[in-house]
Amino acid sequence: MVAGNSRLYAIIGDPIAHVRTPLVFNAYFAAHEIAAVCVPIHIRPEDLAAGMAGLKAIANLDGFIVTAPHKARVAQMVERLGQDGALVGAVNTVRREADGSYSGTMLDGHGFVAGLAGAGHAVRGRSIYIAGAGGAAAALAFALAAAGIRALTVFNRTRERAEDLLARVKAAFPAVEVRFGTRDPRGHDIAVNATPLGLEPGDGFSFDVARAEPPMLVAEVLMKPETTALLRAAAARGCAIHQGKHMLDGQRDLMMAYFGLAPDVGTRSAAAR
Amino acid sequence: MVAGNSRLYAIIGDPIAHVRTPLVFNAYFAAHEIAAVCVPIHIRPEDLAAGMAGLKAIANLDGFIVTAPHKARVAQMVERLGQDGALVGAVNTVRREADGSYSGTMLDGHGFVAGLAGAGHAVRGRSIYIAGAGGAAAALAFALAAAGIRALTVFNRTRERAEDLLARVKAAFPAVEVRFGTRDPRGHDIAVNATPLGLEPGDGFSFDVARAEPPMLVAEVLMKPETTALLRAAAARGCAIHQGKHMLDGQRDLMMAYFGLAPDVGTRSAAAR
Repeated sequence: MVAGNSRLYAIIGDPIAHVRTPLVFNAYFAAHEIAAVCVPIHIRPEDLAAGMAGLKAIANLDGFIVTAPHKARVAQMVERLGQDGALVGAVNTVRREADGSYSGTMLDGHGFVAGLAGAGHAVRGRSIYIAGAGGAAAALAFALAAAGIRALTVFNRTRERAEDLLARVKAAFPAVEVRFGTRDPRGHDIAVNATPLGLEPGDGFSFDVARAEPPMLVAEVLMKPETTALLRAAAARGCAIHQGKHMLDGQRDLMMAYFGLAPDVGTRSAAAR
Repeated sequence: MVAGNSRLYAIIGDPIAHVRTPLVFNAYFAAHEIAAVCVPIHIRPEDLAAGMAGLKAIANLDGFIVTAPHKARVAQMVERLGQDGALVGAVNTVRREADGSYSGTMLDGHGFVAGLAGAGHAVRGRSIYIAGAGGAAAALAFALAAAGIRALTVFNRTRERAEDLLARVKAAFPAVEVRFGTRDPRGHDIAVNATPLGLEPGDGFSFDVARAEPPMLVAEVLMKPETTALLRAAAARGCAIHQGKHMLDGQRDLMMAYFGLAPDVGTRSAAAR
C-alpha cells in the first residue's frame, strides 16, 4: 500500500500506457517488503526539460527508468554518465545520489544478454545479426560485445548510422568482428529485430525472416505484442524464438542493484537515508 | 495494482512522510475500481517553482493535494483560483483541466465542517472560537462562516493577523459576528486549535484548555497524534472532542468531486479522456 513515507520510482516516456515496468517493479517491492512504489510518468518531448527539473525537485524520488523517446536526451541531462551510457549515448536507468545529483546508465543491452542467458542462450563466441542502428540496437551491440560475442553484423536502411555504430563498437571492443549486413540474416547464430517495426499490425519486417532457418535463434526487443509477427514467422520456419519481454525481465535485477535495492545490498528505506 | 495506464494523483508538501492522503485516496480508488494511484511527493520550499513546472509536464497527473508549507504559494501559481481559494488566499486541491492548465481550490475548511457534521455537530447558528490566524485558521473561518455560524472569535499571538482575518471574514459574510479573543475559550460552542502547536511532544497549548467546560466541543486540525495533548486535556475536563483526522475524511468526497472522480460523476479514466 502506498503511504506518505513511500519512496518513489518512475518510468518516463511518451507514450507511457503500454509500459510493464510499474507492474514488474511493484511486484518486486511487495515481494521484498520495500516501502516504495513505481509509477508511470507521461512526459512529452517538448516538456522533457521542465519534467526533468521537476523530477529533481521531488526529494523522495530515488530513481527512474527512461523509455522512448527520451533515452538519448536524458543522457545529456544527468550529471554523471556511466560507461555503458557513454558508449551507447543513451540511458534507461537514472538514480538520485545522496547530494541530489543524477547518475545514469544504460541497462537495456545487459538486460537483453541476461534474458538470453536466462533462456539458455549463451552469447560468448557467437555471431549476432542486428536489424536497426538506433538506441536499442546500440545498447544491444555494446552489451553483446562486452559479453564476448565473436562477430557482429548490423543492417539498417540508413547505412551511415550502422557504419557509425559498428565503428564505435570496434573501437571499444577490438576483438569483435564487425560488418554491415543485408536484409538476409543467414550465417548468424542469433538474429535480432532492434527496430520499431512490428509495433503496428501493418508493419513489415526489418529483415528477411523468410530466409531464417534453424538453428538460428530469432529475437525481439519489442514487448507488445508479446509474440510479434516476426517471431511468428520465424517460429513457422522452425527457428527458436526469444520475446522482447525477456529484455525487461533480464534487467530488473540489474536496475534494482543500480538503485541499491538488490536483496543482498539491503533497501534504501526512508529510515536508512 | 499500479500499471502503465494508471492515472496519477499526488500530495505535495514538506515534510511528507506523515501524510495520510495516499492511504485514503488509494483505498477510495480500489473501492471504486478507478485505475489511478496517489503518491506522496516531497518538494522543499526552495524547489517549489521547479516542482510545479515539473508536475505540469507530467501528462498523466490529473490533480494533486497541497499541504504545508505550500498552500499559499501554489495559490499564486495556478491559472484559475476558485472562490474558496481566493477568499483564503491558499489552495489545497489542484486539478489539471483538459487544456493542461491548473485550477485550484481550498477544501480544508469545508472538510472540517463536513467532518463536524458527520460526527453529529451542526455548526449553523453556533459560536466558534479559533486559535490561530494562519492558513488553516483562515480556511476554517471562511468555511464556517459560509456554513452559517452566528459568531466567530479568533485568537492569535500576533493580533494583526487575527484582525486581518476577521475583517476579511466580515467583508465576505457580513451576518457573522466577529471579534478578537483571548486565551480563554469560554462562551463558545466549539473551540478549535488551528495552530501547529501539538505536533511536537513539548508544545504548549494554543489556548487555555484548562478553562474549557461542557457542553463546549474541543476540536483539532492536527492529524498526528490522532488525539493531541489538547484533546486529552479537554476530554479530562469532560468536554466532547473532535480529532483532526475528520477534516481529511470529511473532504475526501469533496476532493474526489473536484477531480471528477465522485461515484455519481463517473471516472476520468484514461479511456474517457
